[in-house]
Amino acid sequence: MAKVQPYVHEVKYYECDRMGVTHHSNYVRFMEEARIWWMDQLGYGYERMEAEGIVSPVVAISLNYKRTTTFKDHIEIEVKIAEMTELKLSFSYTMKVDGKLVCTASSTHCFLDGGRPVVFADRFPELHAAMVATLQD
Amino acid sequence: MAKVQPYVHEVKYYECDRMGVTHHSNYVRFMEEARIWWMDQLGYGYERMEAEGIVSPVVAISLNYKRTTTFKDHIEIEVKIAEMTELKLSFSYTMKVDGKLVCTASSTHCFLDGGRPVVFADRFPELHAAMVATLQD
Amino acid sequence: MAKVQPYVHEVKYYECDRMGVTHHSNYVRFMEEARIWWMDQLGYGYERMEAEGIVSPVVAISLNYKRTTTFKDHIEIEVKIAEMTELKLSFSYTMKVDGKLVCTASSTHCFLDGGRPVVFADRFPELHAAMVATLQD
Amino acid sequence: MAKVQPYVHEVKYYECDRMGVTHHSNYVRFMEEARIWWMDQLGYGYERMEAEGIVSPVVAISLNYKRTTTFKDHIEIEVKIAEMTELKLSFSYTMKVDGKLVCTASSTHCFLDGGRPVVFADRFPELHAAMVATLQD
Repeated sequence: MAKVQPYVHEVKYYECDRMGVTHHSNYVRFMEEARIWWMDQLGYGYERMEAEGIVSPVVAISLNYKRTTTFKDHIEIEVKIAEMTELKLSFSYTMKVDGKLVCTASSTHCFLDGGRPVVFADRFPELHAAMVATLQD
Repeated sequence: MAKVQPYVHEVKYYECDRMGVTHHSNYVRFMEEARIWWMDQLGYGYERMEAEGIVSPVVAISLNYKRTTTFKDHIEIEVKIAEMTELKLSFSYTMKVDGKLVCTASSTHCFLDGGRPVVFADRFPELHAAMVATLQD
Repeated sequence: MAKVQPYVHEVKYYECDRMGVTHHSNYVRFMEEARIWWMDQLGYGYERMEAEGIVSPVVAISLNYKRTTTFKDHIEIEVKIAEMTELKLSFSYTMKVDGKLVCTASSTHCFLDGGRPVVFADRFPELHAAMVATLQD
Repeated sequence: MAKVQPYVHEVKYYECDRMGVTHHSNYVRFMEEARIWWMDQLGYGYERMEAEGIVSPVVAISLNYKRTTTFKDHIEIEVKIAEMTELKLSFSYTMKVDGKLVCTASSTHCFLDGGRPVVFADRFPELHAAMVATLQD
């Protein structure tokens, strides 16, 4: 399978704070953008999951800020599967500007159908297979 | 009826931008906070309207910025009914910090039930009466 | 001069609200994105203005919402000069999704150097000329 | 010293997403609100630090989401010092709604003066002493 390209977020004026840098809370939103984009590349959009009545709450996130970024910076975000269990899925994120590391992060998600946990591989076999394939890159 | 008190929003660090002032887009959110709070004071919470299946889209907004505000400022927002027609409701907002005018604004709303416009006075007679009463203050 | 192309904002998941639609406050941010992008196309980036010590507060905004938009919609935003006076500059915005009008808006700005109003045409003759040229499109 | 009271954030309409719950990125902002409020209670406001030319970047954050929250929920946030080293300061956060745990989190910060790391205890002896005192509660 073709390798998934990094997602790029260009920092907006309104995303910067009084210190003149991207407010740290916004990286959590960039992670979401990159994750949704990554799933789109695998051919399985988030809105399709929603249409099937699945909700996918975020269970945990963790971010390490290495360098500040600012207005107009192009943050390149590489998304990878970090861990897959029956009920949970973890992603890792590597964010760079001009090749320099600015932030590393991770997020863990579960999947609920009518409030009940879904076994990911059973419920989304195609998407699961596509995800496993990315691990071989 | 007792006069509705002004709503107070304390400006958060993350609401300020690179110029060190409250980003202008945030005032639209303060207006929403104040409007919801105002309806709560009239004894009719927004979530009750939602529970009845009513959605209330914003039709138009307009803001005039008079002075900048910043981190920790307490913005006092006075909400008033500006106009009531069968299908639309307009509010005016006066925002002050330490008695000085920082922003004046207005917003216009309609009410939809299953996608169809609702005649406000018919659908919410109690709330309508309470709103009319505020006009006599 | 070549016509400035419309700016495109793809609606993010986190920009949608409980009603499932783009929260109305976010359009004010899309306007800022489009305006900055528009000035970039004219060859005069906002950050260059900032570097010269100029701040450009928003004096007024006005938005009319025509249709709701949602997650993944591509909002095409056309920016035009609406009015130029010595001290103020007004833009108009036309926002469409798939050719259908979703929002029209306007914004008015002034320019300050050390807190004092700047006569735009005097202080930024090149940018002013480029802006005037867009009016002939 | 009197114990610092928990900070309370009431969830705003615009902080909720398409799933009808508080968007997970917003908790990072609630942490900042609670942290700033906590420092205010210790008699040393964040803006005083800023006025002295100190910037305090966030080095790392971590959040574990236990239960969803929504519009009008009152999130009670207890802030505690988790770790103090010469150059870094870590906080832990316990967030509850109606006594039920909704989120636990941590954040780590450093302090910079003109871009150089500051030894916290040396640069802010009073604040450092007040922080140490909270550890004895």
